[in-house]
Amino acid sequence: MDLGSALRLIVITDHGLAVPRSVEDVVKASLEAGARAVQLRDKHASARLLLEQARRLRALTHQWEALLFINDRFDVALASEADGVHLGPDDLSVSVVRKAAPPGFLIGASTDEPEVARRVEADGADYIGCGAVFPTSTKKDAGEIIGVEGLARVVDAVEIPVVGIGGVTPDGARLISAGSRATGVAVIGAVMAARDPRLAVRDLMAPFSRPSGDRS
Amino acid sequence: MDLGSALRLIVITDHGLAVPRSVEDVVKASLEAGARAVQLRDKHASARLLLEQARRLRALTHQWEALLFINDRFDVALASEADGVHLGPDDLSVSVVRKAAPPGFLIGASTDEPEVARRVEADGADYIGCGAVFPTSTKKDAGEIIGVEGLARVVDAVEIPVVGIGGVTPDGARLISAGSRATGVAVIGAVMAARDPRLAVRDLMAPFSRPSGDRS
Repeated sequence: MDLGSALRLIVITDHGLAVPRSVEDVVKASLEAGARAVQLRDKHASARLLLEQARRLRALTHQWEALLFINDRFDVALASEADGVHLGPDDLSVSVVRKAAPPGFLIGASTDEPEVARRVEADGADYIGCGAVFPTSTKKDAGEIIGVEGLARVVDAVEIPVVGIGGVTPDGARLISAGSRATGVAVIGAVMAARDPRLAVRDLMAPFSRPSGDRS
Repeated sequence: MDLGSALRLIVITDHGLAVPRSVEDVVKASLEAGARAVQLRDKHASARLLLEQARRLRALTHQWEALLFINDRFDVALASEADGVHLGPDDLSVSVVRKAAPPGFLIGASTDEPEVARRVEADGADYIGCGAVFPTSTKKDAGEIIGVEGLARVVDAVEIPVVGIGGVTPDGARLISAGSRATGVAVIGAVMAARDPRLAVRDLMAPFSRPSGDRS
């Protein structure tokens, strides 16, 4: 599966929102429903516990031939043989990680600014997470709301895949697909807190599932 | 300088204790006084800020041909071209980091148990930080007080250098030197909070400054 196809939906983990289910339960349901990209995100876990989680998710994602990204911790990504790392504004920079990364290692970067998007693309980022597209309560550091228009400006600035993030629901995914050439969306609550994660995954992916030739 | 000689004293950083001076000020004074090993430790800093600190300390430690270790974050250690990483009980394991580390990269590990010490030595650790030797308030996760006797048991279990940590003052350093074959000591408060860091460094190193042939 090519990167763009896998990035129609990135399922970002959150233990608290998954309760009473485990993150692994929700990820497994997501993979069964067609998700092909998972990002392990746990800002409070120690490296040791994060690695344990990463190894469990690595086994699951391998089973479905899905991509696994680790938020922030490049070292844990290496140790868990994840496909890549996702770097936010407080994390190591794309250029620093690209220099130290093995060949084929994927790097995602967060930005809502076209100029920064061009720079991280030049620095070696493989995809961009762009938002917050809609209001969200999941990420305290999500910054301002850029809307589908703001997302479209970032998408149009680069060649690499861009996924919209921030308060994305199935309705939001449809708006994003209609109003931009974004590759897909990344979500935390929309899947982790969903009563039926399989249904949520299918609804979130559907707007991006037409042939990629139609997307430009 | 050989590793054992450099590890007579590891100066561990702490912004809060260094106030009103900067960590860099205190580290510079320590290097001037003869310290040849620094560990950057900041559990609350983002990776980006930790890397910025690491680069400043890398410039300083290079100037004095001293070793720089980064606590916990193997990725930041790689990115800053530090000499090594120090791994605590909640961090990545020695074996995991050894597999991913470039040749010559140094790994320190914390333990107060002879059996664990032997295991991390076999896994590729280059030195061990062992404690808490004395009561301490700096590290909340320091565990029980093992005394000089407990330290001596770990020292005698392995071939690699062992440094005592936990509430070590100049008096404590003398007790450790007299009561064990430890290579040296690692301190946070004793240098970071010292009114005169140069004096503290000299007093902490003095007990370990006789020729190493006399130490066994």
